Amino acid sequence: MRMSEVAGDVLGKNKKIVVVSGPSIAIEVAKGLPTTLVAASRDITLASEAQDTLMCAALRVYTSTDVIGVELGGSLKNIIAIAAGMSDSLGFGTNTKAAILTRGLAEITRLGVAMGASQETFAGLSGLGDLVTTCISPYSRNRWFGEMLGKGKKADDIIKETEMVVEGVTTAKSAFELSKKYNVDMPLTREVYEIIYKNKSPKDVVKDLLLRSAKPEVY
Amino acid sequence: MRMSEVAGDVLGKNKKIVVVSGPSIAIEVAKGLPTTLVAASRDITLASEAQDTLMCAALRVYTSTDVIGVELGGSLKNIIAIAAGMSDSLGFGTNTKAAILTRGLAEITRLGVAMGASQETFAGLSGLGDLVTTCISPYSRNRWFGEMLGKGKKADDIIKETEMVVEGVTTAKSAFELSKKYNVDMPLTREVYEIIYKNKSPKDVVKDLLLRSAKPEVY
Repeated sequence: MRMSEVAGDVLGKNKKIVVVSGPSIAIEVAKGLPTTLVAASRDITLASEAQDTLMCAALRVYTSTDVIGVELGGSLKNIIAIAAGMSDSLGFGTNTKAAILTRGLAEITRLGVAMGASQETFAGLSGLGDLVTTCISPYSRNRWFGEMLGKGKKADDIIKETEMVVEGVTTAKSAFELSKKYNVDMPLTREVYEIIYKNKSPKDVVKDLLLRSAKPEVY
Repeated sequence: MRMSEVAGDVLGKNKKIVVVSGPSIAIEVAKGLPTTLVAASRDITLASEAQDTLMCAALRVYTSTDVIGVELGGSLKNIIAIAAGMSDSLGFGTNTKAAILTRGLAEITRLGVAMGASQETFAGLSGLGDLVTTCISPYSRNRWFGEMLGKGKKADDIIKETEMVVEGVTTAKSAFELSKKYNVDMPLTREVYEIIYKNKSPKDVVKDLLLRSAKPEVY
């Protein structure tokens, strides 16, 4: 379930719910550094209310009616950040990271569109934007978790050793199951899932991903 | 003119021309780190030949027929990298950088589509992918140039002091003119152009961009 579904389930379906998401590492927002967000609600008037309430000198808020897309971007990006973190600690460079980010965004977009989201949302702040932040920020827990995996640590041990919630761990399992349900090809998600839940080696994953058959970019 | 147009002009229009682009910082390619590229030609057979020729263990090549999109992504991204570099040296964080990257990709996509490119290409390796690499790599000359601008140096002085070619400087002027010709809104490109060619202050730019009127994300 998406968070707005959980909220509707707990508070009642008729409650006015607005989803706010985007590239917003908390410590940077607290410091007043320029940050952008998306406020999404099926009711655009509600989204505009949230926009008016939150907008200030350091915070620029855009509106959207694509609740599904905004929520999925914010959660699915954590899986790709785990892959990016692995790439970092395996000693790969920015070329590899950019490839992971790009192909990662392509596969979470495919799942989102299959679930009813708009493709454009994933190219926006709550998709691409949040993905970029999470993949490059030193504060990202999911990227850090991937780094630990890349260093050869087992997922269970990393989780035991931290008090932080690493969302991408659970999300990888949900997304893997959703990819089968909606019949969507998600190679990066599948590999992250197999590393966390099936003890596959991160080094084997890189080999498997690079040695796939040659393809056109859009298929 | 795009590079393939220059090549056609010099070598003859009937020459077989394939464009190869993507997130590929040279030093990382030389080290054999995993890298992805797009080979584009209006003739898909030619693109596939380039794919077969270049593909190896560390190099994964995709094909495309969108020559315009692949070429524009590779050149226009340099303008956004200059903006990202300015943001870095002005002390902003990853939230700001992700916003620049996302809104920057949106505006270069708008120009590309107006010029006949496919929107999907900009979401791919030669668009988003190359943009990410250029905005985060310590080796990027365009990002570095932006850093110097953010520190208050004048564009002419930075150019005089380096032997490197900073493509984005000329591209900002071309893109600014193309945005007027095709009537496409490109706020980041316009500001980078005004900083380089009109001596506008980078700090005023940040204020101007953040204080624009509230908007929906997709318009």
